[in-house]
Amino acid sequence: MNAPPDITDHPLVLFMPSGKRGRFPKGTTVLDAARQLGVYVESVCGGRATCGRCQIEVQEGHFAKHKITSSNAHISPVGPKEAQYAEKRELPAGRRLSCSATIEGDLVIDVPQDAVINAQVVRKDADNRVIERHPAVHLCYVEVPEPDMHKPLGDLDRLKAQLQKDWGYRRLEADFHILGDVQKILREGKWAVTAAIHHDEEEDAARIIALWPGLKNEAYGIACDIGSTTIAMHLVSLLSGRVVASAGASNPQIRFGEDLMSRVSYVMMNPDGRIAMTRAVRQEISKLIDKVTVESGVARTDILDAVFVANPIMHHLFLGIDPTELGGAPFALAVSGAVKAHAHDLRLGLNPGARLYVLPCIAGHVGADAAAVTLSEGPHRQDQMMLVVDVGTNAEIVLGNRKRLVAASSPTGPAFEGAEISSGQRAAPGAIERVRIDRQTLEPRFRVIGSELWSDEPGFKEAVAATGVTGICGSGIIEVIAEMYLSGIISEDGVIDGSLAARSSRIIGQGRTFSYLLHDGEPRITVTQNDVRAIQLAKAALYAGTKLLMEKQGVETVDAIRFAGAFGSFIDPTYAMVLGLIPDCELENVSAVGNAAGTGARMALLNRRYRREIEETVRKIEKIETALEPKFQEHFVHAMALPNKVDPYPKLAEQVQLPPRKVLAEGGTEAPRRRSREEREARRKR
Amino acid sequence: MNAPPDITDHPLVLFMPSGKRGRFPKGTTVLDAARQLGVYVESVCGGRATCGRCQIEVQEGHFAKHKITSSNAHISPVGPKEAQYAEKRELPAGRRLSCSATIEGDLVIDVPQDAVINAQVVRKDADNRVIERHPAVHLCYVEVPEPDMHKPLGDLDRLKAQLQKDWGYRRLEADFHILGDVQKILREGKWAVTAAIHHDEEEDAARIIALWPGLKNEAYGIACDIGSTTIAMHLVSLLSGRVVASAGASNPQIRFGEDLMSRVSYVMMNPDGRIAMTRAVRQEISKLIDKVTVESGVARTDILDAVFVANPIMHHLFLGIDPTELGGAPFALAVSGAVKAHAHDLRLGLNPGARLYVLPCIAGHVGADAAAVTLSEGPHRQDQMMLVVDVGTNAEIVLGNRKRLVAASSPTGPAFEGAEISSGQRAAPGAIERVRIDRQTLEPRFRVIGSELWSDEPGFKEAVAATGVTGICGSGIIEVIAEMYLSGIISEDGVIDGSLAARSSRIIGQGRTFSYLLHDGEPRITVTQNDVRAIQLAKAALYAGTKLLMEKQGVETVDAIRFAGAFGSFIDPTYAMVLGLIPDCELENVSAVGNAAGTGARMALLNRRYRREIEETVRKIEKIETALEPKFQEHFVHAMALPNKVDPYPKLAEQVQLPPRKVLAEGGTEAPRRRSREEREARRKR
Repeated sequence: MNAPPDITDHPLVLFMPSGKRGRFPKGTTVLDAARQLGVYVESVCGGRATCGRCQIEVQEGHFAKHKITSSNAHISPVGPKEAQYAEKRELPAGRRLSCSATIEGDLVIDVPQDAVINAQVVRKDADNRVIERHPAVHLCYVEVPEPDMHKPLGDLDRLKAQLQKDWGYRRLEADFHILGDVQKILREGKWAVTAAIHHDEEEDAARIIALWPGLKNEAYGIACDIGSTTIAMHLVSLLSGRVVASAGASNPQIRFGEDLMSRVSYVMMNPDGRIAMTRAVRQEISKLIDKVTVESGVARTDILDAVFVANPIMHHLFLGIDPTELGGAPFALAVSGAVKAHAHDLRLGLNPGARLYVLPCIAGHVGADAAAVTLSEGPHRQDQMMLVVDVGTNAEIVLGNRKRLVAASSPTGPAFEGAEISSGQRAAPGAIERVRIDRQTLEPRFRVIGSELWSDEPGFKEAVAATGVTGICGSGIIEVIAEMYLSGIISEDGVIDGSLAARSSRIIGQGRTFSYLLHDGEPRITVTQNDVRAIQLAKAALYAGTKLLMEKQGVETVDAIRFAGAFGSFIDPTYAMVLGLIPDCELENVSAVGNAAGTGARMALLNRRYRREIEETVRKIEKIETALEPKFQEHFVHAMALPNKVDPYPKLAEQVQLPPRKVLAEGGTEAPRRRSREEREARRKR
Repeated sequence: MNAPPDITDHPLVLFMPSGKRGRFPKGTTVLDAARQLGVYVESVCGGRATCGRCQIEVQEGHFAKHKITSSNAHISPVGPKEAQYAEKRELPAGRRLSCSATIEGDLVIDVPQDAVINAQVVRKDADNRVIERHPAVHLCYVEVPEPDMHKPLGDLDRLKAQLQKDWGYRRLEADFHILGDVQKILREGKWAVTAAIHHDEEEDAARIIALWPGLKNEAYGIACDIGSTTIAMHLVSLLSGRVVASAGASNPQIRFGEDLMSRVSYVMMNPDGRIAMTRAVRQEISKLIDKVTVESGVARTDILDAVFVANPIMHHLFLGIDPTELGGAPFALAVSGAVKAHAHDLRLGLNPGARLYVLPCIAGHVGADAAAVTLSEGPHRQDQMMLVVDVGTNAEIVLGNRKRLVAASSPTGPAFEGAEISSGQRAAPGAIERVRIDRQTLEPRFRVIGSELWSDEPGFKEAVAATGVTGICGSGIIEVIAEMYLSGIISEDGVIDGSLAARSSRIIGQGRTFSYLLHDGEPRITVTQNDVRAIQLAKAALYAGTKLLMEKQGVETVDAIRFAGAFGSFIDPTYAMVLGLIPDCELENVSAVGNAAGTGARMALLNRRYRREIEETVRKIEKIETALEPKFQEHFVHAMALPNKVDPYPKLAEQVQLPPRKVLAEGGTEAPRRRSREEREARRKR
């Protein structure tokens, strides 16, 4: 539009949620207007009102902020083609097909991100956030001219020309496997076909990766998070964005080594170790694909795209790369950037043209899973100083805002997962997950996984009869130690106060140290001095890493904290803060975000712009190698204290009655306080 | 350069043969200057004076046309690095390394297209034209920074960054198979590696397709012409452009059907026919790769690019496409555009990253081989009206100049190849290839393949004793029939004059028609009336197609004629014109160009610009389907006459004494001439 449009003839249209707006001549279809503004509206049939993918809703009312009065009277009435679709396929009330509805006055248009056709089985995802879509793979229906001896363009060439004409692709190539199929499919579809087009990077030529006769109106992708312990997969409709099935499995590599480093050792010691582990993880992923396709009734060949996230070692093993270099300094990744490949390169058994995208790794210890968590939580998309922690055997930590992001990894060890804890166990029915200790009597009460009752409530015994009370899981150990601290059983240095044995039979002497008896059953469940030490070491590592990042950012506090991962989902942020896992923060701004890595994977699957976003973000993230930072040790020592030797927790103190300071010698008896040199210096600086 | 450079400090440099010129500051290396002007100069080591690929020569003297006085005094003297290379690797006299030599005054620089390093075995190619190079695959040596924990970029990412920095690639990706190798190769090369980069289309991201530790200074490609009968392959150095080995083999598909249509029938009749034929041709190509690599001592894995040309049916079968549609109207190609693929898609057993390029097809009957011939002969690169014919079972015909090209295919049948001829045979020792007939006595003399002696020369009998005189090959049949016409044995309508039996015992009655006895031996070799008819039908088809194209171009004559293919290589243009295979033309402008299809394939292998050139040219070529042209039949009928019923041959008549017009009835006796309606009309128009 060179001349400014005549406003009366060019109503104003605002698209939500993107907020993009523009004026268009009356009679323009809503779909055309969306495309001109770069608003993504799905469409397979290319405006023939047959695929039903391009649904929109008109927002009625006066939108003062936008100076628009929007009404269903400002859009064309339902025409015969749209009516036919609505009748056959049950268009929901209020929905219109944007390919048929034309602009006749000012409009606020909502583009729903969950348009569903047919009676699709939809499975609720743990994180059912709606993701704005712009997938790398599209379905495009076209009607191709028949062969013409006077213009002897090949079948594929006419198909390409028509796709370019109807769908605006500037440069279009075809996968090799299409060459052998194109004749048959064109004739089977009587010259009407649906092509799957892969167009990830804007600058690359788009590529025809699959072809079906007639209108093909469903395509799927998988989003998969390969953890050291578990693999989680979602099967997602590329057209509606919905998760249609999810499945998880143990990582079969566990048989080669429980933790990451033992798997690296296995590769170093066994000539075929890498190959065996690569095969194992790919086979398990193939089985998960079986699960999600069987559950949803989707054909494997209808899966056209796949996004994977993983920590660096899983990332390398999955891609067939030797992870040995990740076992020692300088922890060199073979590849850190995003990996774009064909699913058949990894023999995943999807559609022959299916693509594969693996998010970038941030550093040798901070993998594509951490990148996915970052993408999901988006510290780089907002102004507040956000801390994102993903706690596992290593904790990955990202801190920052839209101006600057810093990231590190801290070796927390497996204590948070219940390992190295005398009564520790994995989160499973029978495991203690919640604990309260009476400040006066020092008597505990607790809840176990599988029952809603507290241990002092009537019926508890019966409720847990089937499982028993078997141990303490990760969230339980956090709570019991925090409660022990809050009730004065342990000192700020983590020493169990032996003098309390006189007051409570729960305090039990064991050689030179003391334990707290949490449950006097079979088994007896105690928290030993060693258990407290293990948690102190783990949380000190996490906090020291966080502290380094805060120093890099030049901040003393953070505005918001996100706990990602299974561990984060179950712990109570208050107790995490009481123990000093995380810095002081408004408790309402601390939240668990579940499998954020999986969510990040889904975002990259459903919107190629998120791929560019995370690639760009990862390039910019400043990586801190904790082992190389001279102050790490000092922060670590301070963070051994509860919640911290030097850092204050004023916001926490507003919510929680912190105990008076108590300093005990290792034996558990009160002792004159010896301040370390570092501590003295730190205090002097404050 | 914003301000005009100071002429005294910025000498003028002209590069030949490209003719590109520019001014550069003194001290600029010749290589840098070439790059800035877009002049292609090979270099692997990136200016370290170790690969020796960037050789140039200074042209001494005053070049008045260019106003340049060029001298070796205007280039920097040989420095220590260059001297070291020259000593170790024998730099030819006069050659300089352009990465080391700097501009110190006005220069005319010759970029030789055949710089050869080491004592490479060079095999002479049939067509040893020098092809300007700009291959799609380059070798690039780089020194990659070691891993750095503070900037944890992956090995591949640092490699890419260095390649972009040193070699100017804007966008660079890596093949998936590189991921698993990159760590090991970087460490093996102590962070110095050579990458093979595939960059065909300028707009696409360049891709790392192979990687070696240290300096890798050789890379090869194959150029292959898949004919219906024979497959010919060249192994070519991508760095020097030289053909290092050539080999040929029979197309093993012959066992499925001698000619193209019988192979299409085989596919239609046998469910696995297509697969069997695809496998057969690929296996044979793999054997040829064995041959050329064994002969040259080149490793298969050093082959990084492969270019193929073929007629449409061979093209489809090679690529794994069902050719059935090519068996009938509308002769629809599955794909007509150039095919870009990975060599491993066809399991050719080259380097895992090797690429494949197949030239575009012009039409359902005019294949990638015809496109290659066009690329080789370049009618589109010049002003004169050039006719290019490639004669086989079908004749492909291209006519035009830089303004406009038209193309067609004519069903000549196999007569030109010696089939359908009573004494016809393939070109092999013992076959008659040259014939002269005495105008008075009607006695013949001839030469056979394998001997330089004419049959009437002393020693002939002994010379051919080993092979005997076994039949007539394609070029022989052209000559004998042309000589029969020139000596009055056959009329302009192709009837053998039975009345001459009285004058010569060579004219022999056979039922209602007559034959000419060419050789009275064992076997007896005669030219029958049917033989003459077969050649007339074939040449009439060829000429009628040519005539259609001339009409499309609006020309009555052509300026130049190129005969491509094996048949064209052996026939004498004069006789081809006497028979009227081709239109009248200055004989000196008619030439055979040998395996022009193979040359075109080599050009596309050695210079990606030729790929774009032929893609663009093929898009523009106007295709004429002879079967749909109403005037084809009329032209065909006129062209049955020798040389033609209606078209004059004034230029031929200047060189050759054409016989007086003689019209004979079918029985071979002189008869009142009956003119057809078309003939009368045609004559009236002249």
